[in-house]
Formats: sequence, structure tokens, C-alpha cells
Amino acid sequence: MDSIITASYAVHFNEKGYEILNDQLVKNNYSKLFILVDQNTHNHCLPRFMGNIEGEYDFEIIEIEAGEVNKNIETCTQVWEVLSELDADRKSAMINLGGGVVTDLGGFVASCFKRGIDFINIPTTLLSMVDASVGGKTGVDLGSLKNQVGVINQPQLVLVDPEFLYTLSERQLQSGFAEMLKHGLISDANYWNTLKNVTNFNALDPLIHASVSIKNNVVVQDPTEQHLRKILNYGHTLGHAVESYFLESSNHELLLHGEAIAVGMILEGYLSYQLTGLSEPDLEDIKTTFLKRYKKVAFTKKDIEAILTLLKFDKKNSHGNINFVLLEKIGKPAIDVKVSSELMHEAFEYYAK
Amino acid sequence: MDSIITASYAVHFNEKGYEILNDQLVKNNYSKLFILVDQNTHNHCLPRFMGNIEGEYDFEIIEIEAGEVNKNIETCTQVWEVLSELDADRKSAMINLGGGVVTDLGGFVASCFKRGIDFINIPTTLLSMVDASVGGKTGVDLGSLKNQVGVINQPQLVLVDPEFLYTLSERQLQSGFAEMLKHGLISDANYWNTLKNVTNFNALDPLIHASVSIKNNVVVQDPTEQHLRKILNYGHTLGHAVESYFLESSNHELLLHGEAIAVGMILEGYLSYQLTGLSEPDLEDIKTTFLKRYKKVAFTKKDIEAILTLLKFDKKNSHGNINFVLLEKIGKPAIDVKVSSELMHEAFEYYAK
Repeated sequence: MDSIITASYAVHFNEKGYEILNDQLVKNNYSKLFILVDQNTHNHCLPRFMGNIEGEYDFEIIEIEAGEVNKNIETCTQVWEVLSELDADRKSAMINLGGGVVTDLGGFVASCFKRGIDFINIPTTLLSMVDASVGGKTGVDLGSLKNQVGVINQPQLVLVDPEFLYTLSERQLQSGFAEMLKHGLISDANYWNTLKNVTNFNALDPLIHASVSIKNNVVVQDPTEQHLRKILNYGHTLGHAVESYFLESSNHELLLHGEAIAVGMILEGYLSYQLTGLSEPDLEDIKTTFLKRYKKVAFTKKDIEAILTLLKFDKKNSHGNINFVLLEKIGKPAIDVKVSSELMHEAFEYYAK
Repeated sequence: MDSIITASYAVHFNEKGYEILNDQLVKNNYSKLFILVDQNTHNHCLPRFMGNIEGEYDFEIIEIEAGEVNKNIETCTQVWEVLSELDADRKSAMINLGGGVVTDLGGFVASCFKRGIDFINIPTTLLSMVDASVGGKTGVDLGSLKNQVGVINQPQLVLVDPEFLYTLSERQLQSGFAEMLKHGLISDANYWNTLKNVTNFNALDPLIHASVSIKNNVVVQDPTEQHLRKILNYGHTLGHAVESYFLESSNHELLLHGEAIAVGMILEGYLSYQLTGLSEPDLEDIKTTFLKRYKKVAFTKKDIEAILTLLKFDKKNSHGNINFVLLEKIGKPAIDVKVSSELMHEAFEYYAK
């Protein structure tokens, strides 16, 4: 598959990706190479990765605990301390091998260590391949506030190797697939229709490439999220709040990111129907498609109140307003739409129906 | 005094600086304005600052504890939490009113909050006016390792108001003056000779402007410290190690930054004499000038060993080598000079003589 290359970053795929990675490791002559993993990718992905590396390097492996609850400043501090103890210097580089927690946190750690060292992202989940691999967003959570602390900074290179997907559960694959469905909703009705009917997750390569391309086209046009890039937040305004709430609330099962934004995409579909002209059939199509893949979540009145309170912390806010990305139709987004609190409550009612 | 303006940052002075600041606050229409202070600048500098602000703003004041020991990730996390609690959003801005701790830490906090909000630096110490005001270095310490975590990011504007210097002790002024003397050593023998004889700190305005201009000329040519900008590290390789050691060691009096790099400039003067052709009279001139202003520090053998151990963590290292900036003569630096451990020990002997 063709690499996706822009002035500030490059995403490479499969065997060719490893070739380019191996070349860059030789060319850049890093003083030291660190590989950041969690216990899962340490066990299941590192062996395959190492098997594709030519040449001899004294890799230092740094393992963090898996899971979104560990994507925080305390974990960053631990990694910074390990890097210091292991004599990392400005010419060292970090390879982040893992899902979004590892690549988001690892990218942030590298971007701030001694004011920035090189890093390479190797996403191992479907979610991180199609979402975190492009765009340079790095960061960690602050308490229950997602990605509250971070920077925009590009990795030296991203390598997408779909073989890693065989290490994932069906549930994790579905979670990543939600972001791909989002790519259809915000940019291409045909792509949405193709994805809707995908049941076999063993032949995703061309679809992953398509999703990365869609995201890339958006990010290239608006790297700092002034306007167009906001469309990538479809489903995420309410979805993030739902995710944060379930993350901090001890009496709820944990929702995966894709599961939370699937809820968000239905809720914001309803808002689109009310505010930006999304047709009723399109709305029903969105709801049916997501509920076929993702178990319906039961929200109590108290849950909904708490979720809407969390909303105000969302990064898309400014001057106290909450700006939504909504849809005019499937494939055509509208940005900066303000929504009343009443309508958000209605959206939860529609979801529950 | 003329503003110093480049493509990526601007430093303004005195009354004209306040005019421009007031204009920018109106123009940028920030959703919320935060002022970061420590207890000293809260008491001694904030009233003057507020007196110069036109228009009505609901400033939120965030106070951190004064002192280099608080320039760490824990303090950053506290400030990030306060910003979140006070509903800071992406269109908010932070005004850092203080010395290097406040501007370095505040710049880092702002650069990472929701992946970056605007910040304005108002240095209140001589050190931060002549050193931290230009160049975009932000960051905090990690344990005893200075500036181990940070990013390069430019403030929206820097305002230098030398009136704030009246709030400082003689010792603090001398500490800042060490960086100005460094500017002479690395770029201009005449400037060095002028500064050597300065005893009255009440008329520093033109010299501050000269020092900011020197630093600016260097940074503009090499913003990311690939080559020329390294000259600003003269005295800092050993000076930082001395400073770090005194910071973490409980049985030593605290050394101010300028006092530590004054030691470093004598030590590295000796290295320059041995390695890069600095003349004996120039070396004596450097030693005499600094020892006239800064009390000689007594180093035990154990101290020196510990300091040289800390050196390896210095950011200027790569591939395990320690690269020094030395002098060929006063006003003419040499970069990337490697120095043996023996010679560093000799330098401490020369310092003690």
C-alpha cells in the first residue's frame, strides 16, 4: 500500500514500512533507542516488531501499565525518570508500540523530554491505526478530563502493520471500527455504506488505508484545528463526556473509546436531525448501524446530568459555549453548531427509545 | 526603547510595552485571563502590573510557591487542575508575572494545556528579563535535573519593565547580571568591558536592551539550537551541574542561578585556556571579574565528584560525550568542544586557587 506522505509527517504500511523504518534507524544514528510498550504489547506485539528489525540495536524497553486510567501525568513522570536514569539524551529516540494510550502518552513524553526528542509511532490497535496515527495529537488525561494536557507534535514516522490486529479481541476491533464509520459519516456516504456491511475483520488493510487517507486529507488542510479539522470530532463532544463519566464512575462497566463515541454519534445524529437538516432515514440508518454493533448503554437521569456537567470541560468549548460538529447529511458535516441543554436531554431520550 | 520583533516573537519595553499589551488584550478577546504569580510577585509586582492595565478584565490569579524547588511537574499539575476548575478553554490566555520559575513553568503549563493556549511573559527579575524573555524555552525540573521536561514555544508577547527590578535584592540583581556578563563573553569584548565596571543597578535599561538584543540575534539565527545557539550555554554545562548539586544537597546554602553559572564561567574559562586558546590575561580577567561580584564557593573533593556525575545528565550531551561551549578569546566562542574528566578536575583546582 502506498505511503501517505506530507511535509510534516509520513505514514507507511506493512513490509515497505519496516524497510523505511530500518533505513531511518540507520540514517539517524540515534544515541539510544527506547521502546515504550504496555504489558499487552510487550507480550503480543514486541516479538513481531523485533523480528522485523534489521541490524543490532540495544533497545531499552519501557513498560507502562495498560489502560486509559494510566494515561496520566504520573505515568509520564515515571517514564521521564526512567529515560533520565537510562541516560537518554537529545539524540535518543522513542518507539511507541501500542494502542492510543501508548502512542498518545509516548508522543507527549518524547515531545517534552529535554524539550523534544524524536519518536516513532507503531499503532497496534485498529483505533490507533485509523485515528491516532495521523495528526500529531499527543497528550494525557487530567483526572477524568481526557487529553487535557498535551501538545501537537509529529512523529518522525508512523508504521501501520495490520498484522498486529490479530492480537486484538473482537470487542477491541469493533471499538476501532467506530472511528472508521465516523470517517464515512463526515466525508463519504459511499464509504459509510461499504463499512456498514463489513463483518469480516481479517481483510481490513484497504479500509484502514482509506480511513488514514481521509483523516490525512482533513489534517493537512487544517493542522491546528481552526476549522475543517473540527469535523473529526463528530460524535466526540458527547462521546468523550460519556467516556469520561464511565471512566471515573466506579459502578459502571468500562466503555471502550469506540463504544462511547458510537453513543455520541447517535446522540449527535439526533441533534443533526433537529438542527442541521439530517433526514429521518439517515438518522435511523446511523442509529441502527451503531446499535447492531455496539450494545445499548443504559443511562439513568443522574448519569445524564453528570455527563452534561462534564461537557463544559470539553476542549471544543470557548467563551462558555459548546460547539458541536453535526451532519447536514451522511458525508456532509457542519461545524460550530450551538446546542441547547434541552435538546441534549432529548437526544438521550431518542437514544433510549 | 525599541521593541525587538521577529517572525515568531516580540519583546516590548516599558510604557510602549504596556500600550501594546493593552491593545493585544482587546484585540484577542480572550475568553478568560489568568495571571500566574508566586507569593513575591503577587505582593510586589502585581499591583504595578494591574495599575498599567486599561479596561476591565476578570483576571483569575493563580499563585504558586516561589523558588526553583517548586519548578516541577507537581506544580504544573496543580496549575492545570486550577485552570480546569476555573473553566479555562482554548481561547483563554495566561500571563506569567515573575522570575524564571514563573515564566518557564507558566510557559510550559500554557503550551500543554488543551494542547496549547496563548501566554504572555512579564519577567520581573533581571535574570528573566535578559535570559528567559527571548527564545521560547519553557520547562520544569525533574528531581535535581534542571529543565529536563519542557517544550520550545513562543509567548504571544514579552513585556520587559525594568521598574520591577526595584523589588529585588542586590543579590538577585547580581545573579541576573551574570547572564549579561556572559553575553559580553560570548559575543562582544567591548560590552564585557562596559559591564565589568557597572556598579549602579539603577540605570540598567539600555544594558538590558543590549543583552536582549544579543540573545535575540543568536536565537533568530538558530531557533532550535543546532549550532550557534549553543554559545548561550557558555558557563552553563558545569554551572548547571553545580546548581543542581546545591539544589539537591541539604547541607549546602542555596546558590542562585547566576552565582552557579559565574562559577561555571570561571571553570569553563580555564578549559578554554587549555583547549581553545583563551589567553592567560583573558582568563585572569574573567576570574577576577566574577570573584569580585560573587562569593567564592568552597567545593570538597566529594562535591566535585558528585557534580561531575550530574554532568552526564546535561542536555548538551549526545552519544555519551559532553560537549562544551568554550572561548577562543573574550567575545569569540567555540562550540562542541570535548573535555576530559581530568581537565574538569584541574578547572576546579584553578577555581579554588
